[in-house]
Amino acid sequence: MRTMGKWLWALWLVLLPAWAAAEDGHELWLRYRPLQGQAMVQLQAGARSIVVPAQPGSPTLRAAVAELQRGITAMAGREPVLATRIAQGALVLATPGSAPPGVELRWDELGREGWLLRSTRLQGRPVTLIAANGEAGLLYGSFAWLRAAQTGADLSRLEQRSVPKVGLRLLNHWDNLDRSVERGYAGASIWDWWKLPDLLDPRYVDYARANASLGINGTVLNNVNAKAESLTAPFLAKAAALADVFRPYGIRVYLSARFSAPVELGGLKTADPLDPAVRAWWRAKAAEIYERIPDFGGFLVKANSEGQPGPQDYGRHHADGANMLAEALAPHGGVVMWRAFVYAPDAKDRAAQAFAEFQPLDGKFAPNVIVQVKNGPIDFQPREPFHPLFGAMPKTPLALELQITKEYLGFSTHLVHLGPLFEEVLQADTGHGGTVARVVDGRLHGHRLTAIAGVANIGTDRNWSGSQFDQANWYAFGRLAWDPDLPAAAVARDWVAQTFTARPAARDAIARLMLASREAVVDYMTPLGLHHLMGTGHHHGPAPWVDNLERADWNPVYFHRAGRDGIGFDRSATGSNAVAQYAPSVARRFGDPRTTPPELLLWFHHLPWDHAMPSGRTLWAELVARYDRGVATVADMRRRWAALEPDIDAARHAEVAAYLAVQEGEARWWRDACIAYFQAVSGLPLPPGVRPPAQPLEAYKAMRFPFAPGRGG
Amino acid sequence: MRTMGKWLWALWLVLLPAWAAAEDGHELWLRYRPLQGQAMVQLQAGARSIVVPAQPGSPTLRAAVAELQRGITAMAGREPVLATRIAQGALVLATPGSAPPGVELRWDELGREGWLLRSTRLQGRPVTLIAANGEAGLLYGSFAWLRAAQTGADLSRLEQRSVPKVGLRLLNHWDNLDRSVERGYAGASIWDWWKLPDLLDPRYVDYARANASLGINGTVLNNVNAKAESLTAPFLAKAAALADVFRPYGIRVYLSARFSAPVELGGLKTADPLDPAVRAWWRAKAAEIYERIPDFGGFLVKANSEGQPGPQDYGRHHADGANMLAEALAPHGGVVMWRAFVYAPDAKDRAAQAFAEFQPLDGKFAPNVIVQVKNGPIDFQPREPFHPLFGAMPKTPLALELQITKEYLGFSTHLVHLGPLFEEVLQADTGHGGTVARVVDGRLHGHRLTAIAGVANIGTDRNWSGSQFDQANWYAFGRLAWDPDLPAAAVARDWVAQTFTARPAARDAIARLMLASREAVVDYMTPLGLHHLMGTGHHHGPAPWVDNLERADWNPVYFHRAGRDGIGFDRSATGSNAVAQYAPSVARRFGDPRTTPPELLLWFHHLPWDHAMPSGRTLWAELVARYDRGVATVADMRRRWAALEPDIDAARHAEVAAYLAVQEGEARWWRDACIAYFQAVSGLPLPPGVRPPAQPLEAYKAMRFPFAPGRGG
Repeated sequence: MRTMGKWLWALWLVLLPAWAAAEDGHELWLRYRPLQGQAMVQLQAGARSIVVPAQPGSPTLRAAVAELQRGITAMAGREPVLATRIAQGALVLATPGSAPPGVELRWDELGREGWLLRSTRLQGRPVTLIAANGEAGLLYGSFAWLRAAQTGADLSRLEQRSVPKVGLRLLNHWDNLDRSVERGYAGASIWDWWKLPDLLDPRYVDYARANASLGINGTVLNNVNAKAESLTAPFLAKAAALADVFRPYGIRVYLSARFSAPVELGGLKTADPLDPAVRAWWRAKAAEIYERIPDFGGFLVKANSEGQPGPQDYGRHHADGANMLAEALAPHGGVVMWRAFVYAPDAKDRAAQAFAEFQPLDGKFAPNVIVQVKNGPIDFQPREPFHPLFGAMPKTPLALELQITKEYLGFSTHLVHLGPLFEEVLQADTGHGGTVARVVDGRLHGHRLTAIAGVANIGTDRNWSGSQFDQANWYAFGRLAWDPDLPAAAVARDWVAQTFTARPAARDAIARLMLASREAVVDYMTPLGLHHLMGTGHHHGPAPWVDNLERADWNPVYFHRAGRDGIGFDRSATGSNAVAQYAPSVARRFGDPRTTPPELLLWFHHLPWDHAMPSGRTLWAELVARYDRGVATVADMRRRWAALEPDIDAARHAEVAAYLAVQEGEARWWRDACIAYFQAVSGLPLPPGVRPPAQPLEAYKAMRFPFAPGRGG
Repeated sequence: MRTMGKWLWALWLVLLPAWAAAEDGHELWLRYRPLQGQAMVQLQAGARSIVVPAQPGSPTLRAAVAELQRGITAMAGREPVLATRIAQGALVLATPGSAPPGVELRWDELGREGWLLRSTRLQGRPVTLIAANGEAGLLYGSFAWLRAAQTGADLSRLEQRSVPKVGLRLLNHWDNLDRSVERGYAGASIWDWWKLPDLLDPRYVDYARANASLGINGTVLNNVNAKAESLTAPFLAKAAALADVFRPYGIRVYLSARFSAPVELGGLKTADPLDPAVRAWWRAKAAEIYERIPDFGGFLVKANSEGQPGPQDYGRHHADGANMLAEALAPHGGVVMWRAFVYAPDAKDRAAQAFAEFQPLDGKFAPNVIVQVKNGPIDFQPREPFHPLFGAMPKTPLALELQITKEYLGFSTHLVHLGPLFEEVLQADTGHGGTVARVVDGRLHGHRLTAIAGVANIGTDRNWSGSQFDQANWYAFGRLAWDPDLPAAAVARDWVAQTFTARPAARDAIARLMLASREAVVDYMTPLGLHHLMGTGHHHGPAPWVDNLERADWNPVYFHRAGRDGIGFDRSATGSNAVAQYAPSVARRFGDPRTTPPELLLWFHHLPWDHAMPSGRTLWAELVARYDRGVATVADMRRRWAALEPDIDAARHAEVAAYLAVQEGEARWWRDACIAYFQAVSGLPLPPGVRPPAQPLEAYKAMRFPFAPGRGG
């Protein structure tokens, strides 16, 4: 035994982090870390007590106060007291019936769920008012106040008001009853169906808190590829137990319904929506559900799509099916969300089918039916034009369905922030007099029943979403569902401030990195309007060469149509003319390659490889340049993330860095495989100076991924 | 706004726990909560510094020191310093090459992995010695010292020495490559195969720490129902990444191998073990594996069992298959664990087949083959007699395979502590000159290659095992694998002390509850030697009536053979004579109902319903009484747990209470359904005073569990 060597100190340093509690992302954006400096002073001064109405609070009020207590205690380092009397530095929760004297508000401007935060004086003392017309609004307002504190707002000069523009803000879980998740990349389903209803995972409460903090007010628990069993008594009891947990947080439970359930569960010979026995079965089922879940939200239905049963099996149309369910739910206040995602093997152009089936039904749906339309006409690609149904069914409430889970965008291993994608579709001008946002929020056509749905990316992984940054997609969805006109950049900054750091320089650097990531994935996967080049079934990695699937419209070659003559799907008047489904102004713009944005060029047009692009390059050179740009952007994201090391805790910094390394490798793979393939098809040489693919085309074609996640049970 | 009412204080109390960090069980038995009173004084006095050898430490030494630092810092409230000089209150880690002057030990008594803890004086100063011949022993010794501190041992008078009796102490994961887990009831597989090898979940380190704390030194990563893909380069890279994480903790990685892999992966026409090309393929595969994982442990093989391919497909026997793989692994030091769990559709008695196939092969296996035998001759039932192969293959090393996951014992929702089950089989006298423990630890027949394997109950659930108390089954397995002669009761007390409380009264009360639980599950599921009455496929709940499965020996009626004349499987000389597979003394005892223990009576004998039992009751009355006793024990467990509320943190107390409520309900269901069925079969009235089943038999028969967990992908 000699004197302590240098190695010993090195060992000591290596060991230190081992027992420090590492950040694992489980707290999401509700981390409530202690504030610093002036922000801490303001917080301590402005949240000394929480003043609540003197009458016993509902579970929702209790949830709001509990969250304030939790957040303030953690951020300020001391607990605010609960009080009924105004004092200096009080947070005053007020509704019209409970507001202390001196509160003068335009209550009607706050709607049913909106809130107001105001720094003011009451009884001569400086206080902060959290005001709303009901307890749900107080809950949302409390979360908004906590967000203000987390993001570095001046808590002594608050004046914020927000009212949700969309009524139903829903997550859609594609979770199966065996706990697998279709297109889930974050472990198993968080719904432990087997142990429900007796055993309630504490995580259910955290799920509700996180959603309520964004304003999400409903959740469809089970996969749209539904099993009839989800409507049996044992599973209704399980759903009811979850509904009981979520209720204080303003979240209603919905279920995906299998159209053939009357046959499978009821023993009927048919599920024909015009059959009186079928209608009676659904009425009885609805009554049974509301007996257990008095505030049940309603049904989500995938019918006559990808093998699911539906009204067309009986020669009826979608409205017949939807209206039958609507009739059963109407007495209880429930709604039907009927999905427009349909396509048939014989369609000339898969992109055109939903419009063809649904647009003629405008005006035929019952008042409590919402037709739920995916953002684009194919299927959640890195970029699609907005769906032509938006604006084209003025008599029908249309819900926007977005995909939060990244089925086609690198699963949970690629950092792809979807805020800009959501924003792009919401702000797209339909040509019918308003944006998609105006269609969805009901203002364009005067609908009061409005909805927006996001396919959840939530699973049992400790960080909920499979990666730290995928949490931001859940967050962005929720914030934009509440207010579809929020700028994605501002939402991203809020998320960073709540999740990583509120220091402006680092916050903005991280947000910029996020905001660049969506265009990167478009570039390295499917630039210039290309789409659905992904591997069969699992949708992982490039497979533009696949041409042997059972149905033509499952094959990448169906979508890109590349050959010696050129590339792209002609949806103009010379082709499928799907472009004619858009409003005339839009159809004109997308119908001509000269006015089609380059980002959508090959979506609408089949063009020769030497087509001249606005950049001055040929189409072929532009395609290669975009692939290269995508890879370069990811490499740049890695560098920028590495530079952020001083600003981020070690555990999450290292984790994200490891993910980005995977992403860069896979971006290169995408770029190389696609260029190798399109070069082989076009017969063209690589543009000068372009790096050849790392491997021959056959090597990429030979890759197999037999246990890729997300294919469900 | 009025004065603060009583409700406000109530609200306050309700809210308080919401943001206190709740115990969720994630830390397992390595919680390291601050000690109290005299224990704290002793700890602070006895762990002021950690003295390590001056030469740079290996990763294993670093792991040992890191764990001591973590544990002491948390338990003592202050960090021990790292030092190279002896001082008062030092923990001195010593090997023969590094021990300070004055340390006099019988090093040879510590073996390769054993350790010694000793309170002594060095250089005139009181210190604690943690001594071992190598760094693995120092790691195990460090965990032993931490256990001593956690369990309330007098740290100033330590004198403990332990050397593992079994060489290979392994977990078997039945985890599939799609992340489902066969017979898993704790969420998805913790192996995130998709993200490996690039992304390493921090949980992998905690898994290694937990196993090392018990002395587990190997893990078979994938299901015995193996996919050939687990041997492909991408999956070997994933396994290698895990091996790199586990190596510092003394844990080697093993893989389940699919016997037909040379056909499926190598493109060979056959997997015949005597075919030179097949042998060459396996040699090359082994070399490839060792290239990536230099300390790879070897293969686990399920062959010619339940549809798995094997040597019998080519007219060869098990030893041919095992020896071929052994030949491939031998140059690298690997072993083959060849499972004896086989049964064929045409067997007269399924319980007899493994012995019939394997015993004649004794002496034919290569030196690096271990035949892995389940504890009983059927399949992990609540109670089975020990497997007749133990002691009957003196020339062959036999591994004991135990099931930690509770496939047949209530999944993760029933509190059933398996320590007594493990102890019962280990201490069973084989009649061949020693207990099962003596066979397995190699002493009876002089084997140096020894192994014990436990089918893991680990998944992504936050508490790892699906319930708090299922952690104890992992723990008990590990401790008994190290020393098969440890009393289960002492191990249970250790676990309670480390996991819940070290206060003796509460600790012993919890341990008693655990120790009673195994007999309870036998009673309410399969008393008196009954077996395999469980529901088809998922094995959930009672289904003694099932008689329509494809194979006779999958049907409960095959196993219980109940009719008007009586009940039980006659395995005596008048029946299948499977009893003759045991050593003569055992065969005599089990061959006669008068000398067969009541606990195994119906395993070996078919007896009339009025058979007189030692209790004075008829067999029928005894059967009913045992079912009632099982239910009563669970009800008593609930009461005893409720009384422990002051001793347990609120979160875990409430969670366990909820689980026990489920268990009591399901125990009643088992009891009612089985009594209803056996009553219908026997035509006998219920004994006087016995409560009739709650529902008619048909109601129990009609129950379905379509999404029961654990059936794998």
